Amino acid sequence: MTGHTPTDPTEEYARTARTTPTRARERVSYDRESVHAILDAAFLCHLGFVADGRPVVLPTLYARDGERLYLHGSTGARALRRDALPVCLTVTHLDGLVLAKSAFHHSINYRSVVVHGTARRVTDEARARAALDAVVDAVAAGRSADCRPADARELAATAVLELELAEVSAKVRAGGPNEEPEDLGLPHWSGVVPLRTVAGVPEPAGGEAAPAELPSYLRELAG
Amino acid sequence: MTGHTPTDPTEEYARTARTTPTRARERVSYDRESVHAILDAAFLCHLGFVADGRPVVLPTLYARDGERLYLHGSTGARALRRDALPVCLTVTHLDGLVLAKSAFHHSINYRSVVVHGTARRVTDEARARAALDAVVDAVAAGRSADCRPADARELAATAVLELELAEVSAKVRAGGPNEEPEDLGLPHWSGVVPLRTVAGVPEPAGGEAAPAELPSYLRELAG
Repeated sequence: MTGHTPTDPTEEYARTARTTPTRARERVSYDRESVHAILDAAFLCHLGFVADGRPVVLPTLYARDGERLYLHGSTGARALRRDALPVCLTVTHLDGLVLAKSAFHHSINYRSVVVHGTARRVTDEARARAALDAVVDAVAAGRSADCRPADARELAATAVLELELAEVSAKVRAGGPNEEPEDLGLPHWSGVVPLRTVAGVPEPAGGEAAPAELPSYLRELAG
Repeated sequence: MTGHTPTDPTEEYARTARTTPTRARERVSYDRESVHAILDAAFLCHLGFVADGRPVVLPTLYARDGERLYLHGSTGARALRRDALPVCLTVTHLDGLVLAKSAFHHSINYRSVVVHGTARRVTDEARARAALDAVVDAVAAGRSADCRPADARELAATAVLELELAEVSAKVRAGGPNEEPEDLGLPHWSGVVPLRTVAGVPEPAGGEAAPAELPSYLRELAG
């Protein structure tokens, strides 16, 4: 939260024309706690920007630090070299398949967050280092303390951007299918097939005489 | 493939400036079969477009039909009402966490496809119906034949777009971490934590006297 006034997490993000949907308004929320929870449960976003007047969307790693996101692009290096980049950052969790009696009402259950703003290059070395650590910890909580920190050359080769959480909305669909009343008697199965992402058994890298023991933060991950 | 000349799936998509990366070129492919496999293993994409000069990225359902994608937006209806919309459509599968000895070489394993092009509104009723069925079948293979088809009113309320697969690339990262040779002796665990999406036990919708039996295409999914 360097340089930021702490924000009351019970507050809501201000609504804007861009974050007000034209339909399904009941699924949208501006609640900070809901937005944070959706962002913190992922580390991969889809980052959209405009290049030569055309849209570009690239998968990108991120981490949240208070009311700010750090972005670390292994792809899209061209764009991430800009000092200030208007972006739309979207995170989506796929929670289930929603099967209705009618083709029309088929849907998915999901939790998503859309952030509009301007991503800015982090040039300060200490903050770039903190951002890189935050991204490593977003991938596996506690990992940044259990690996070799970046050296000066590596930091210089890392494009880190920050994006303030200001123009933000969450959208959630949960629960069973919507149905037309006249469809309820149809014989087709209807309901939800829940989906979730699970971790498998960790695969140690080869080529070591004595592989290190699996750390506790990975044992928990693999459940 | 209505109105399209069948394309040899062993061919590659033509490379363009937009689909040629500035780095990690060894991970990029233009192979149709690889692109099709990545697209067919998902049904949720992130669709980017430009609105009032700013980027917008929305999660959207899609299905592939030969060298064409059909898009069906439950979100972003504003944009999907346009007749022709320049888009960037990105699909990403998250396959694993890559933990290296150094913070710098942490990464993820993934398979992604990026499609650049212009999405066009499907106005023909038969094709819109086929597109809606394709999206339903992308969510659960075989389902479009086991639900009530859309009626004229529902079709009119559905925004369907098509996008040709012409300017397309795939990017894949697989395998263990890259390491600096001097890091190999460090004591930190290194390797890959595989991730995958799994289906849970299907949850039938309530409120029916006699719920239908679970269809075979859902039994396999949860298998």
